Amino acid sequence: MDLSENELVAAIRRVLSGADPRVAVGVGDDAAVVRPGNGDVVLTADMLIEGVHFTRPLVSPRDLGYKSMIVNVSDIAAMAASPRHALISLGLPSDIDAAWVVELYGGLREAADEHAISIVGGDLNAGRAVVVSVFVTGEVAPGGAVRRSGARQGDSIVVTGTLGAAAGGLRLARSDLSLASNAWATPLLQAQARPAARVGEAGTLAQAGATSMIDLSDGLAMDLSRICVESGVGARVRLADVPVAAELAQLAAALNEGPEPLELALSGGEDYELLATLPRESVDGARHALRERFGVTLTAVGDIIPGESLIALEPDGDERPLEPRGWDHFGG
Amino acid sequence: MDLSENELVAAIRRVLSGADPRVAVGVGDDAAVVRPGNGDVVLTADMLIEGVHFTRPLVSPRDLGYKSMIVNVSDIAAMAASPRHALISLGLPSDIDAAWVVELYGGLREAADEHAISIVGGDLNAGRAVVVSVFVTGEVAPGGAVRRSGARQGDSIVVTGTLGAAAGGLRLARSDLSLASNAWATPLLQAQARPAARVGEAGTLAQAGATSMIDLSDGLAMDLSRICVESGVGARVRLADVPVAAELAQLAAALNEGPEPLELALSGGEDYELLATLPRESVDGARHALRERFGVTLTAVGDIIPGESLIALEPDGDERPLEPRGWDHFGG
Repeated sequence: MDLSENELVAAIRRVLSGADPRVAVGVGDDAAVVRPGNGDVVLTADMLIEGVHFTRPLVSPRDLGYKSMIVNVSDIAAMAASPRHALISLGLPSDIDAAWVVELYGGLREAADEHAISIVGGDLNAGRAVVVSVFVTGEVAPGGAVRRSGARQGDSIVVTGTLGAAAGGLRLARSDLSLASNAWATPLLQAQARPAARVGEAGTLAQAGATSMIDLSDGLAMDLSRICVESGVGARVRLADVPVAAELAQLAAALNEGPEPLELALSGGEDYELLATLPRESVDGARHALRERFGVTLTAVGDIIPGESLIALEPDGDERPLEPRGWDHFGG
Repeated sequence: MDLSENELVAAIRRVLSGADPRVAVGVGDDAAVVRPGNGDVVLTADMLIEGVHFTRPLVSPRDLGYKSMIVNVSDIAAMAASPRHALISLGLPSDIDAAWVVELYGGLREAADEHAISIVGGDLNAGRAVVVSVFVTGEVAPGGAVRRSGARQGDSIVVTGTLGAAAGGLRLARSDLSLASNAWATPLLQAQARPAARVGEAGTLAQAGATSMIDLSDGLAMDLSRICVESGVGARVRLADVPVAAELAQLAAALNEGPEPLELALSGGEDYELLATLPRESVDGARHALRERFGVTLTAVGDIIPGESLIALEPDGDERPLEPRGWDHFGG
């Protein structure tokens, strides 16, 4: 860094300037001061580390900032809450320049603006690798948070959107970028670089009576296993019904040893779609509401069953265990 | 790491288990859910990075955890607020084992317990270096936060405790640990490893009418310059009145090229004492209250003056500029 901390803070304050009546004290004091609403306060933290979650040459600072914010907003959404405020702690190696940091904040701000979030503080540090540590607060009506632990036997398992595109985009970016000019490549790369957080969709699912909810950061198999463990239930997933992103077939054909599309959808991670359980009779209404309000599909992919088994139902009717394999942050 | 993320989360949940009626959802869901109080919500974030803020062989994971929490609590205190909840995001290199992480959480928990903070969530990641990113929420009576921007001409500048010990402890740890067996070495090493956050003291200073406040993380000179910039004022510091930690004289004598004690007190950083401005007539009462309630000294070290100069008044009556030099997180 060729700037002092004080100079960089001043530059960032210019990027973040904005009026929010809920913010009494924003960036630049020991801590931020915000006015609470009437609901419960929801708190989440998610960190992106260079060399683990991203590789610097393959991601623009703007996309990195955008995604760092969205993965946190997605966690707030998964509680059926609305995001409110954010703080950002950064670790910045010496080869990063101020323009890169301002672009990073531009992406953070872009995602924050889309969700009416005020960035109210944070911390700047030297570091060996780029670290983007984001903290987001949210609000939900008292008692209205949807947890992982409420799934009940007989509930339908539903997912929003399509799955596997983000993991496909990552494979593509890491393997052969000459393929990126294909029309089918764009949605994959976009899903990886600019995921969406399903805030409104989560609220609609909660209104429809969702008994449990989680955002798909680590893949359907892993995240469903988390709902099952917390809820003390099992699950049967109909593999034929999993909404695999259409472009993954073209990716598999284009790459020599292409990944199996279904496998990416089950275990690829980073889709940030919602996985929820709903009373069976509520699925049609929720599907209709999501399509009408957000143009987003809702797909029933299986059922909650007694016990603790995760079962995959093959298209031919065979059953096999569904391994809770997915993105493990320690490289599993 | 020889553990999966799920296994490590389970171990950490055991360390953190505890009942807090304000916490509706703690560690283990997409986000935490807490019940707000009636006051304003205060938010802060502070990150410690291996190789920048600490060196792994020189710090125990328990002390690292303790200090990581305290530096955040100190920021909450500096707003005259009370800490409430914390989230912790970690980056963990592959040579860290689970016992080390559990000890780190033990230290985080120890500091949290001292201040009645509930640790309600966070994020675990692989990383190249150890990164401890902490977020703490607090609460303050509506409109009661004390900012950096309220210092007024004629106010007295006061500091709690003594200054420079933490920086002295760092010099000692990095230079000649055979000195650590000296009686005078213990308070220095302790100040570095286990700083105190002045939560109650800050509340007392606010009651006494503090017009501005900051915690001394980067040294008196740097942090005073921040108050002056935000308040649009200058300051004159009487160097003879700066409460230099007594053990620094012995450290300077013991080390060949020992650091000047006054210089450590002005620019060493990491003391986490409070620097505040008070109406002159309130100083005696505040000093008495801090001594009675907390056994902590309060020292008037100078005055707020018009303009924007930072002036050091030498013991012989000469004046020189007080350079806002101190701990810069980019190594300045």
